Amino acid sequence: MKSPKESVSLAVIRRLPKYYRYLNDLIGAGVAKISSKELGEAMGLTASQIRQDLNCFGGFGQQGYGYNVLYLREEIEKIMGLRSDLACILIGAGHLGGALASSRNLTGCGFRFVGVFDNNAALVGTTVGNMIVRHTDELSEFCAKEKPQMAVIAVPSGAASKLVQKLTDLGIKGFWNFSGHIEGAPTSAIIEHVHLEDAMMTLSYRMKENREDE
Amino acid sequence: MKSPKESVSLAVIRRLPKYYRYLNDLIGAGVAKISSKELGEAMGLTASQIRQDLNCFGGFGQQGYGYNVLYLREEIEKIMGLRSDLACILIGAGHLGGALASSRNLTGCGFRFVGVFDNNAALVGTTVGNMIVRHTDELSEFCAKEKPQMAVIAVPSGAASKLVQKLTDLGIKGFWNFSGHIEGAPTSAIIEHVHLEDAMMTLSYRMKENREDE
Repeated sequence: MKSPKESVSLAVIRRLPKYYRYLNDLIGAGVAKISSKELGEAMGLTASQIRQDLNCFGGFGQQGYGYNVLYLREEIEKIMGLRSDLACILIGAGHLGGALASSRNLTGCGFRFVGVFDNNAALVGTTVGNMIVRHTDELSEFCAKEKPQMAVIAVPSGAASKLVQKLTDLGIKGFWNFSGHIEGAPTSAIIEHVHLEDAMMTLSYRMKENREDE
Repeated sequence: MKSPKESVSLAVIRRLPKYYRYLNDLIGAGVAKISSKELGEAMGLTASQIRQDLNCFGGFGQQGYGYNVLYLREEIEKIMGLRSDLACILIGAGHLGGALASSRNLTGCGFRFVGVFDNNAALVGTTVGNMIVRHTDELSEFCAKEKPQMAVIAVPSGAASKLVQKLTDLGIKGFWNFSGHIEGAPTSAIIEHVHLEDAMMTLSYRMKENREDE
């Protein structure tokens, strides 16, 4: 299998979680194999796009047979690194942080939470998910000892830029950011931004234009 | 201006919130006009893609001048219907529901929350955002009276399909769904799905391949 590192666009990469979710649904429904046509219909893509996407990583299908569902899920797990177990900290123990820390959907996404931090003294010592909230003052010591590689940023938006800089200095490489625009992020940082409001704006448009699901 | 309803792909529509966010940032920074080249560089798109996207709605730019930032934001607000004020209910008063109900980023996205519901008696009567949580048994009566048009679905994933069916029967048209796959959604429903775990899987891949921001 060729290394996807250089050649595969992030647009393709961003479709892989969708494949992964569909394959899990299929496995749950007892489906053992599927053609690119059927998979495409279920996912709203063409058969040709399915084949193109998966060919980026070496194929996995057999002409005239289709895809073995279990095998394809396993390969996508490997490609995405979902079996790794990267140590991740959560910054922000508010509502959103609480939702993320206790979400079961995040199990099997390649990481585990090892600590949660907040600068609000009223939250320090409370429990979020299964973790006791620590004060952000303890970050340096914690990171030196536990060496987390990823952080989830769930703080008010004004606070995020400085925080990402600080966490990078403490050895954090990857960020899942819910806190809006990051000013002056270090070039070494790997950041996935989530803008929850975007989906609501899109819904607003579709309501206005009455565009049903396509 | 031609109606975008028939002609514009959802892929273009889904980029509009990103334009809107960037234009807000530019206005915050005191920028009055911007070229498609500069806007493209800021947003990670080509100048040509920017022009193509905006031409779907009639253009807005002037050759040799670029885009008037305030005017463009205003037009995008109109296109997306962000100034409308659709009544929206929130189902699920857990951590995630609490985060959404109290998020300031959702202001100006075309809707307002008019009620929050949960089937957990322990949450009924508590306050989420500025709203008192009602029992889901009250949904029929509430919807008959308040006629909400949208619902945010923030319940455990097994419960979502039945709920969407019920809410459609009560007159809800648009759904912002955080609860995974919806089985047998009515064809009239307009649904925006959010799969939070997708971003974390993408981050997992990028960590594995060490793909920094592009």
